Formats: sequence, C-alpha cells, structure tokens
Amino acid sequence: MKIVILGFGAVGRGVARVISLKKEYLQEKYGLQLDIVAAADRSGGAIFAEGLNPELLLKTKEETGKLSEYPDYGIKGINGGKILQKVEYDCLVEVTPTDIEDAEPALSHMMQAIEDQKDVVTSNKGPLALSFDLLAESVHKNGVQFKYEASVGGAMPIINLAHDTLAGSNIESVYGILNGTTNYILSRMAKEGSSYEQTLNEAQELGIAETDPTQDVDGWDAACKIVILANSILNLKATLKNVKVEGISKITTESIALAKKEGYLIKLIGEASPESLEVSPRLVKEGSPFSVEGTLNVATLKTDLAEDVTVVGKGAGSIETASAILSDLVNIWKASK
Amino acid sequence: MKIVILGFGAVGRGVARVISLKKEYLQEKYGLQLDIVAAADRSGGAIFAEGLNPELLLKTKEETGKLSEYPDYGIKGINGGKILQKVEYDCLVEVTPTDIEDAEPALSHMMQAIEDQKDVVTSNKGPLALSFDLLAESVHKNGVQFKYEASVGGAMPIINLAHDTLAGSNIESVYGILNGTTNYILSRMAKEGSSYEQTLNEAQELGIAETDPTQDVDGWDAACKIVILANSILNLKATLKNVKVEGISKITTESIALAKKEGYLIKLIGEASPESLEVSPRLVKEGSPFSVEGTLNVATLKTDLAEDVTVVGKGAGSIETASAILSDLVNIWKASK
Repeated sequence: MKIVILGFGAVGRGVARVISLKKEYLQEKYGLQLDIVAAADRSGGAIFAEGLNPELLLKTKEETGKLSEYPDYGIKGINGGKILQKVEYDCLVEVTPTDIEDAEPALSHMMQAIEDQKDVVTSNKGPLALSFDLLAESVHKNGVQFKYEASVGGAMPIINLAHDTLAGSNIESVYGILNGTTNYILSRMAKEGSSYEQTLNEAQELGIAETDPTQDVDGWDAACKIVILANSILNLKATLKNVKVEGISKITTESIALAKKEGYLIKLIGEASPESLEVSPRLVKEGSPFSVEGTLNVATLKTDLAEDVTVVGKGAGSIETASAILSDLVNIWKASK
Repeated sequence: MKIVILGFGAVGRGVARVISLKKEYLQEKYGLQLDIVAAADRSGGAIFAEGLNPELLLKTKEETGKLSEYPDYGIKGINGGKILQKVEYDCLVEVTPTDIEDAEPALSHMMQAIEDQKDVVTSNKGPLALSFDLLAESVHKNGVQFKYEASVGGAMPIINLAHDTLAGSNIESVYGILNGTTNYILSRMAKEGSSYEQTLNEAQELGIAETDPTQDVDGWDAACKIVILANSILNLKATLKNVKVEGISKITTESIALAKKEGYLIKLIGEASPESLEVSPRLVKEGSPFSVEGTLNVATLKTDLAEDVTVVGKGAGSIETASAILSDLVNIWKASK
C-alpha cells in the first residue's frame, strides 16, 4: 500500500514514526507493507517510488526543519497538489494544519486525491467541519474509502466505533468532552482552586495550551468535532456556523467550588443531536464517566438499543493520533482485500 | 440471512425483539433481511423455512412459556442439535444459559454449526471460557465467522473495538469492571455505608442480584470474561482454571470508608495480561473512569500506541445484550458481501 503524507507537523511525524515502529507487526498480522512514496511540508517534499525511509524523514525534519532536504530525493518548493500529480499512490494521509476559515490547502488535496480515485485518511478537522457534504458526495461518486477517526478525539475511538462496532444500533446523539486543553484547565481549577488566567498560564508553560489558546478555550476546536460527529454519525448536514459555541474563559473559581459542593464538576461539553449542535460549559456529576481529569477526552453515544456507550481516551498526542490514522489505514487495507 | 436462535431466555427474547424492532432499519441501511428460520428452548422449538414471526415467538413464550407451542410450526421435545440438522440456515445465534462446568449444550451446538460451515454468534461465556482453543481451531479450519461481543460486557463494546477499531495498535493488557451486580453492591455500600449482606439482600430484592448470587459475587462471571478477553484480544491460551479469583463477600463497610478517606473506591477488577489472569477487589481512584456506579461495566485496553482506551456501557440487560448480537450479525453480513 503506497501512501503520501502531506503535512509533517506533530501528526505527520507521528505517522512516520508508527509506520517505522510497526513495520513487522503490520506485515505479520495483516500482510500489509506500508510504503511512504512521498511526504511534504511547507519547504517542499521528497518523492521516491520505492518508498522513503521513515527514520530518515524524521531525522531530516529534526535536523534541518525541511523535508526538501531529504537526501537525493528532496525537492524544494514542490507543493502538495503537484506531488499528488507526480506520484503513483494508493492512499493520501492528509495531516496539514487545520484551518477553519477556508479549510485549505487540505480540502484541495483531499478532493484531488478522491477525484483521482485514491483513498484518503485524515486528522484534519477543517475540510470535515466546513465541507463534509462536498467530500462525502465525491467519495460516493468515486467509490473510494475516506476515513478520519483521528480528527475527533485523537486516540479516543468514536467514529469507527459508531459505524462498525455498534452497527446494529441507531445512534441518536453524541455528548462529550472533546478538547483536552480545556479539560486540563477546568480539572486543575477544580483541584487547586486557582483562577482561569493563572491556570491557563500554567497550561501554556507546560505546553498543554498553545500560545494562542483561542481555538481551544473559546470552544472552536470542540465545535469542529461536533460538526464532524453530527455529519458522520447522525447523518445531519451541518457546518461550523450551525453550532452554538461558548468557551470557558468566563468560568470562575467560585462557580466551580459551588458546583463541587453539590457533587458536580464544570466541563466544556459538546453535544450533537438532531435538535441541537452546541458547545458550552455544563455541570457533570462527580463519579460519572465524565468526571475524567487531565487531557483525556470522553464521549457518550446515546443509542436506541445499547443505551449509553461511553469511550475515554487520549485526545491528542503525536503517537496517539497517529495510531488512529494507522488503524484507519489497516481497515482500508482489510476492506480492499 | 437465515438464523437459528438456540435458547430463548432473556437474551434470546431480546434478539427476537430487536430483529422485530429493526426490520426496516436493517433493510434500508444494510440491505439485510434477517429471517429466524428456527428457535428453541427447553420445551422444544419451532421451525419454518420462510421465517418465523418474531412477535409471535415472543407472544407464545410469554403466554405458554414454551416455544413448542408456536402455532402450526411448533415441535415438542426437539433439541438444538436436531434442529441444526433439520433446517437450512446461515448463522447460529447460541444464547442458551452459560454453564461453566462442561459448557453444554452450547459447546456441542457451536461445534456442530461450525463443522457444517455455518457462522456463529453467541453471548454464551461457557464454551469460550472452557474451550476457546477448540472453537478457534475449528473456526479456522472451516473458514466461518465466529463472533461473541455480547459474551463480555453486554452492550459495552470491547472485543470488536480491540480487533477492528484499534487495528493499528497492539493490545498489551485489559483491565476492567466486568460484572454489573458486584459493581452495584460495592457502589451502594460506598454511598450508604451499608453492610455487604444488607446490600446484597437489597440487590436481590431489586432483581439485580440473582437468588443464588455466587457466580457474580464470588467473581466467576468476571473470571469467564477475563478468559475470553485473554484468548481473543491477547492471543493467550487460557481457560478458567488459569484465573486467580477472589470475590467481594469479605469486603467490609470499614474498608470502603477507609479507602474513601484517601480518595479511593473498592471495585471488583478483572485483569488479563501475559503475566497474570486475575479477578479481585482493588482500589481505584475516585474521578477516574473506573469510579462508575450502578450496574455499568468499564474496561481499559492498554495499547502500545494509543495509550489507554476505556469503554463504559451497560453490562447486562436483554435488549442491550441483544444489540451486541445484532451488531455481530450485521458485521458478518457486511463481511460476506
């Protein structure tokens, strides 16, 4: 199976790492040989039909910051679209940074691959949150496979769980803590009695919150995920502008203490149902699966037959997110046999 | 897809109910028509090649207690083995009561179906806990599908989650609250400060614990599930006698209070790893996913790449368990196309 990796940030590097780590496992267990025939970052890319060396990709990136410096096969300034034209491949792994204004360049990359009848795996929330319908239509028309488990909840499995594992149940709604940064901040505030600003600073120092934390703390990251869940699991036709979004920046130490006195915690909750798409701070019961701490994600699927099914997992992390991408690749491989 | 249901207790009736409820959904979503061509209980059974009416099966059972009384097609005294010889079918749904002494009659039913090259779906823990190896070998030799999601955790998805959804990760160990009755008792003891005996009585009155609660409170039900997880997810070759088992009957109100003071709860935990198969009361942290209350089940898969993935769901219940069986049937159908 020949793959192209577009984007070589934390997730792209994670994908190269897990492919290197799991080479023998994949061969033995599934008879799957994954070859990275091309990879690209902002600097350009590298192309080699017989397969680039994942460890050398990682080393090149670490030492020079540029994939275009890959020995012998590096190409300066080549962009994703051109790479997809130039190489023969089976599946695109689209892991460029999420853009929630116009979803580019990821959307164009994906559309190009799908129209060329290639399978696509992605962790990129932008195209899914802004143009799900367009993608789904093209996927259907071209008869390809399109998987995006890693786009929601990193290593917390939810999309494939709903589609496959719970195939006999109808999913009525989804409800979850879908952003690790806000969960970390709210958990710390509850535990330490510290203020929002102080805790955010601490999270930034630890590298858990980004320098510009808006996407997370204002709820937009969770809102993207709600749109993806609404479209893929509930078969709604939603985009980001359909979601009512409220972040956590107004949560005070006092309100958390008050909730705690009554046996509740405050969490940033995303909810998708046919009636409502919403991200907002809400009370959850201590001792419920939603009382998880740290950067964990949790989501509950309300089903018609199986009642509530809840999953908890690491919502982010390079290797964890890459593991979801690898599972998608394995399942595409299994289905294609 | 023609199915035979052997066993018509809570789970068997649940299967008939969900097949009736989901008739149109299955047809529309998967193009799947499920026909019950035979069903049996202790009294005998009913056979009709064009499909028995699930509602009439349920009504007959409710009113007479005997499937052999099914109008026109009921047969007194016929047993499961004979039914499997007599009818043409695609998949056996084996849901007779679990027996952990010799796994019969379920084991013979399953072996007969597999040797006749039929697929098998089951919730029956006996054959899986006592003779997993024998079954797996025959499944492999005959090239059939064998699914048993409902045997562990009812509607809590764990086996298919590990096999399919997390296909790219290697599962290193499993750790879980796998018995709803004991979780209910321990949760109530922690909440009310009541004694073990008092709480067990209360659970029996509510129908949560059985009149003879040994299988649950002594840990044998959880031990069966640990064997199933060890074999199916960790590829070990275990049987029930390899599990170290300790139940909850010696847990005192005082020990629970002491744990609580330090931020812990006592739960009956099953653990399967290459080093150890064990069921015993253990401390879990309040606020962790393992602090779930009531009859919920929870399990954590320790993976090499995705770190910990945890699932929570209803561990029992007729419709909930049947929903897991239905998902297995749907996935067999999808794979056979």
